[in-house]
Amino acid sequence: MKTIGYAAQTAQSRLAPLSFERRALRDNDVAIEILYCGVCHSDLHMARNDWNASTYPVVPGHEIVGKVTAIGAEVSQYQVGEHVAVGCMVDSCQDCDSCHSGEEQYCRNGFTLTYGSPDRIDGSITHGGYSKHIVVREEFVLKVPETLDLARAAPLLCAGITTYSPLRHWGVGPGSRVGVIGMGGLGHMAVKLAVALGAHVTVISTSASKQADAMSLGADAFLVSKDAQAMTEAQSSFDLIIDTVPVKHDLTPYVPLLDLDASLVLVGQLGPVDGTDTSPLVFGRRHISGSLIGGIAETQEMLDFCARMNVLPECEMIRMDQINEAFERMERADVRYRFVIDMASLQASQ
Amino acid sequence: MKTIGYAAQTAQSRLAPLSFERRALRDNDVAIEILYCGVCHSDLHMARNDWNASTYPVVPGHEIVGKVTAIGAEVSQYQVGEHVAVGCMVDSCQDCDSCHSGEEQYCRNGFTLTYGSPDRIDGSITHGGYSKHIVVREEFVLKVPETLDLARAAPLLCAGITTYSPLRHWGVGPGSRVGVIGMGGLGHMAVKLAVALGAHVTVISTSASKQADAMSLGADAFLVSKDAQAMTEAQSSFDLIIDTVPVKHDLTPYVPLLDLDASLVLVGQLGPVDGTDTSPLVFGRRHISGSLIGGIAETQEMLDFCARMNVLPECEMIRMDQINEAFERMERADVRYRFVIDMASLQASQ
Repeated sequence: MKTIGYAAQTAQSRLAPLSFERRALRDNDVAIEILYCGVCHSDLHMARNDWNASTYPVVPGHEIVGKVTAIGAEVSQYQVGEHVAVGCMVDSCQDCDSCHSGEEQYCRNGFTLTYGSPDRIDGSITHGGYSKHIVVREEFVLKVPETLDLARAAPLLCAGITTYSPLRHWGVGPGSRVGVIGMGGLGHMAVKLAVALGAHVTVISTSASKQADAMSLGADAFLVSKDAQAMTEAQSSFDLIIDTVPVKHDLTPYVPLLDLDASLVLVGQLGPVDGTDTSPLVFGRRHISGSLIGGIAETQEMLDFCARMNVLPECEMIRMDQINEAFERMERADVRYRFVIDMASLQASQ
Repeated sequence: MKTIGYAAQTAQSRLAPLSFERRALRDNDVAIEILYCGVCHSDLHMARNDWNASTYPVVPGHEIVGKVTAIGAEVSQYQVGEHVAVGCMVDSCQDCDSCHSGEEQYCRNGFTLTYGSPDRIDGSITHGGYSKHIVVREEFVLKVPETLDLARAAPLLCAGITTYSPLRHWGVGPGSRVGVIGMGGLGHMAVKLAVALGAHVTVISTSASKQADAMSLGADAFLVSKDAQAMTEAQSSFDLIIDTVPVKHDLTPYVPLLDLDASLVLVGQLGPVDGTDTSPLVFGRRHISGSLIGGIAETQEMLDFCARMNVLPECEMIRMDQINEAFERMERADVRYRFVIDMASLQASQ
């Protein structure tokens, strides 16, 4: 199937239109016309080869919402015309303990990224959601509940599940004391999801400037990390802190905020961080942990939860040809809180 | 009660004899004649004020085994003549959630160190086990099981419980894959205790020179951390790694050895460590944690376990007047694996 998308041809080049082929349907494949695609910070990292793992051309996009246009002979869960979604993964080995327990994101043999990974069957490099169509094996397609706003659902597929999974894994529920560091795409979802799960949620930020926004998202409290007295008073007062900061930063101020046996869970940045002092870990049996997106079943659970609780990201809709500007604005954290590409604009702009 | 001990008078001075008073028995106190005292790396740190927390004179020692010589009017659990032990704590608030759950080491109001803390009642600075006698409130006195070798039991009170507690907290049992980094006082106990709990135990060391020793302690395997191929092959193969290294070191090589959801638990060093990279944490939901000694009930459980399983530290007995030499040798890691002071030598040498 011929399709069109936006691609980076090199680490230095701006994204530009690219015509390419989507594979012919395999028996277990679902063909999807993409309606909306969220813009994740990873898209920018991959387009620019920040992780030295990009294969060009890079067609980014892993927060995909669309409509089924065709199904393979053996597809049983999806029908043409249904609204569906695709997140960060499009395949995994389906045969290891992680896959068997529904945690394909920790597949022992490595899951297949929605873009930038070799396809497990034909070896071609996968292309993501900055395009009109995508073909994905049934097991990695999600159902979009009918009551969920299609456009705003897109960021749930990465920003949503990346924060939902640790909240669930660490048992957040009514009364849990949850802190959220960083109030971007991931952070604002962490706030909304933790609130919906019944937690008492505190946004922890370097400055007071985001307080009104935090409260409007549903946060119960706001803690300025540069306020030494407030930070001292907040020691040992969190059951879980989700750290969504996407760049190198210092963990020193945050670890003492954890209560006994509580965890600081990193979900934003990949690479070295500063400030690991064993003392607050030892003296409070505290933990520094990481968490990666979520499994497919858990992603479906999250979509259903968001539909039921009416949890949706704050989005700014853009046209496909605004993507380079969106990347620049994202770098300046100038977005509340997630760009979503209206893919109808792609045809129109060509 | 008059007693005699060995004390550091300043951060620079060698330990030397000191006569001092132990408090008169309170109703809930147990008076103990100290028979043996283990020599912990913390003793050296405190004598030299390495943590900027020492009040002089410092009488170190928190691995204490002795005999009850007198009891207060309300003491019900101990009798004169019984063999007892004292570890790193001699008091706590007894009124917070941590104390109520038997984790006095995480007392919300701060536990009282066996030496170097202000007593909760009279404010005098506590003095430790490098002395002939000690007076401790009943709740912080342990029973030494009859079958346990008295001299060799002493290091269990810190090195033993410090490694036993995380092994138990993280649920180590038959089949658990446990790694131990650092083979000193703590490390060799971690090996013996994990083996006794039924785990498959691997000693992880920078050089192969300790392999024979590791195996003689009961380890099942040995991993040289400078062997890149062996380290790659060992990725994701541990359920728990106990890191007993007492000095600043780099965690980078060790975190990828953890399996999904597994923890690297720091018990040796206090202060900054190098090498926190979020990637192995995120991609394997791994954890870097700390753990502090253990609660009183857990310490008793550990002593009973060691008696039942015949787990004992490897000790080198010294006289009290050899303590400065022992400190120097400990700094060079020239001890297999714990010095124990025979306190009978104190009277003899005065």
